[in-house]
Amino acid sequence: IHSTAKWTEPKSSPSIKEDIRTAGLSRLTLGKEDRQARDWFVQTTESLGCKTYVDQIGNIFAIRPGLNSDDNGRVPATFAGSHLDSQPSGGRFDGVLGVAAGVEMLRVLNDNWIETEGPVGVVNWTNEEGAKYPISMMGSGVWAGRVSLEDAWNLKSVHPVSEVTTVKQELESIGYLGSIPASHKNGVRIGAHFELHLEQGPKLEVARQAIGVVEGVQAYKWFTVTIKGRESHAGTTDFANRADALYSAATFITMVREVARSLGGLASVGMLAVSPSSVNTVPGEVRLSLDIRHPSDKALNEMLKTIQGICRQIESNAENTSGGRTHLTRITIDMKEDFASNAVKFSPEAIRCVEQSATDLLGEATKFQRMTSGAGHDSVCTSMHCPTAMIFIPCKDGISHNPSEWCEKEDCAIGANVLLHSVLRMDRL
Amino acid sequence: IHSTAKWTEPKSSPSIKEDIRTAGLSRLTLGKEDRQARDWFVQTTESLGCKTYVDQIGNIFAIRPGLNSDDNGRVPATFAGSHLDSQPSGGRFDGVLGVAAGVEMLRVLNDNWIETEGPVGVVNWTNEEGAKYPISMMGSGVWAGRVSLEDAWNLKSVHPVSEVTTVKQELESIGYLGSIPASHKNGVRIGAHFELHLEQGPKLEVARQAIGVVEGVQAYKWFTVTIKGRESHAGTTDFANRADALYSAATFITMVREVARSLGGLASVGMLAVSPSSVNTVPGEVRLSLDIRHPSDKALNEMLKTIQGICRQIESNAENTSGGRTHLTRITIDMKEDFASNAVKFSPEAIRCVEQSATDLLGEATKFQRMTSGAGHDSVCTSMHCPTAMIFIPCKDGISHNPSEWCEKEDCAIGANVLLHSVLRMDRL
Ligand SMILES: NC(=O)NCCC(=O)O
Ligand SMILES: NC(=O)NCCC(=O)O
Repeated sequence: IHSTAKWTEPKSSPSIKEDIRTAGLSRLTLGKEDRQARDWFVQTTESLGCKTYVDQIGNIFAIRPGLNSDDNGRVPATFAGSHLDSQPSGGRFDGVLGVAAGVEMLRVLNDNWIETEGPVGVVNWTNEEGAKYPISMMGSGVWAGRVSLEDAWNLKSVHPVSEVTTVKQELESIGYLGSIPASHKNGVRIGAHFELHLEQGPKLEVARQAIGVVEGVQAYKWFTVTIKGRESHAGTTDFANRADALYSAATFITMVREVARSLGGLASVGMLAVSPSSVNTVPGEVRLSLDIRHPSDKALNEMLKTIQGICRQIESNAENTSGGRTHLTRITIDMKEDFASNAVKFSPEAIRCVEQSATDLLGEATKFQRMTSGAGHDSVCTSMHCPTAMIFIPCKDGISHNPSEWCEKEDCAIGANVLLHSVLRMDRL
Repeated sequence: IHSTAKWTEPKSSPSIKEDIRTAGLSRLTLGKEDRQARDWFVQTTESLGCKTYVDQIGNIFAIRPGLNSDDNGRVPATFAGSHLDSQPSGGRFDGVLGVAAGVEMLRVLNDNWIETEGPVGVVNWTNEEGAKYPISMMGSGVWAGRVSLEDAWNLKSVHPVSEVTTVKQELESIGYLGSIPASHKNGVRIGAHFELHLEQGPKLEVARQAIGVVEGVQAYKWFTVTIKGRESHAGTTDFANRADALYSAATFITMVREVARSLGGLASVGMLAVSPSSVNTVPGEVRLSLDIRHPSDKALNEMLKTIQGICRQIESNAENTSGGRTHLTRITIDMKEDFASNAVKFSPEAIRCVEQSATDLLGEATKFQRMTSGAGHDSVCTSMHCPTAMIFIPCKDGISHNPSEWCEKEDCAIGANVLLHSVLRMDRL
């Protein structure tokens, strides 16, 4: 246990590892746990008769030939896909469910001697979470062409307890820096993409419904916010002469939440670091992450403008308190955009495949609902280039990104079934 | 450069090392820089004819014999003392000035063949800052008997970029774990203690005065505050269902400042760490440091009670927002006291020595003022067992605990002179 643990990792290790319901999962992208999961994925899908392809950003495509296939993965397959990476203290379903259900789909096809029209596949996308390398949906984003390979390769880890690394270094070191172009154009082609995922919110549970037919995903942006003030002595500097970067950060955090609430969006600060980090020094600098979301692109930008106004307001308030020594109490706030994802509407055709499969399996339409996802998913990126839709299943207490994240076995089975049938339905189209 | 730099050390390295006025000093206690400064202190004072003694907490006493001395440091000497450790990004005067002026005092005594009545000495106290091991005035506190040797030895470093260590381990590894008891009772005895220090506040500069005659030090307490909520997804958890530990911390920080302001005290949060530290996870736990100060012990305790009330208020507000799912949004706040120092009044006798020396040197009483220190000093601890007083000199812009901390050479010289004469005056008493 490193002493920095006290100030960088204040976890009260609440997880009783024996209890599967709270054990959670810590599998940050590209670490050694991720490599193990990748190895399992490759071995399992190959043993089920697939050929596997690893591209330059580490996305792994497992393809099961169909009646009309070639041998180099160039005939577009219908994919089930999601991700095997997790949050630093995440759950066992987020992402994993979609990949595991894809593998199960392969088993069912094999066990029932089903031959599909085209090839079908399962894809494990690299770094969907964005928790360690701060671009979410990164592997699928590179494949879709919205993130450049160079930018992704050069990202540096921001997770406090991981080592200095870049994406490219870690891809190499875990043996998953593939040679196939990470591109929808000249890499592995995808005919359609279906993703089973837990809802990560409470709606299905509250409505007692088994399936969410996901029509789209809300917009979100990530920022690194740097607040600069001036270090000074905690025992001798009166408030009027402080430029306290952490006090300004606290004001920012409370005001930004109010803005998001009033505009019907969300805003979250998940990371925050203080410098110089000393009990008796007024902080001179704070760096924090900001995640803002809204179902509408326009409203998201309005939120952003209002937040920028708040920054100017905090800066000028700090000046006003100075009692004539204005130059001493300057606060500056800078916001750097790290990532942006517009609101997305999935393809009506793919949505129909999901909805018809759900109807067939559940019987009545009261057992499912159409919904929009609050979280980002790799399907956001695939939807830029092929018919895409998602299937949600209920999530206990609406809690995700938490070790206690939970889905009932029966719900997983229903979701996997809807996934299988959505893929088969699309394959036949 | 470790990647955690981004979230644990957001320094924008503003210091132009070539410019002595902003270069500052980073000499955290018991690190290798501190060892170098200690070696310098021992060699220099020994070369000036002193005998040096290192006690079990690493305090170093250099003693110059007087007319009435023995050979084992048991005849109480009149000391000039302060500390050579600094803040993580501190200034070049805080503490160092008092030790350097003590060494200069030895030189002046030697150069002028002055023999004192009793022995005189210079002492370098261990870990005055409390920045790395979170008890300030630690070495002098152990000597005074208000901190137990075991408690001090077992302290763990809290500075994010220093390694896992305890005080005792580091004392051993830098060669300053002495064998002499760290105790006013059976260790090195002190007849009187004078400390020259920069003011660390703006009063002398504003009043255009050269010397502050310090009558006492205000009360202060340090706490580790742990706020627990629940990790959840930043994109899917609406505000009503969040137990956001960082949002609660932000509320705490802004409210505590208001309490301190309204009661005429100070409150500062200098360290803060977030868990799990992921951009898209609502924080489940925050740990922060709290420093509260007031000239009156009674008012400080009133501040503390009000702050404890604020904790209960934040806890119950969090419950109220839950819209019926109360159990999901619980916030708990725990405050652990790490350190407390009552308000102190120095000895009238020692204060008189300082005031008379200032009068002799500066001529008119308009050139100095009596004042109370906002910061803690080793003199707080020595004053528990021997006549003690302090001398302040002006501090540029009132700024300390900052690399740009600055004192004019002329002011340092006046201060060192007042120190010398205060010691001589007390020696003759
Ligand atoms: N589904 C999911 O948790 N995605 C992570 C990206 C985000 O929405 O923050
Ligand atoms: N003089 C000084 O900076 N002391 C450090 C202890 C404190 O007052 O916080």
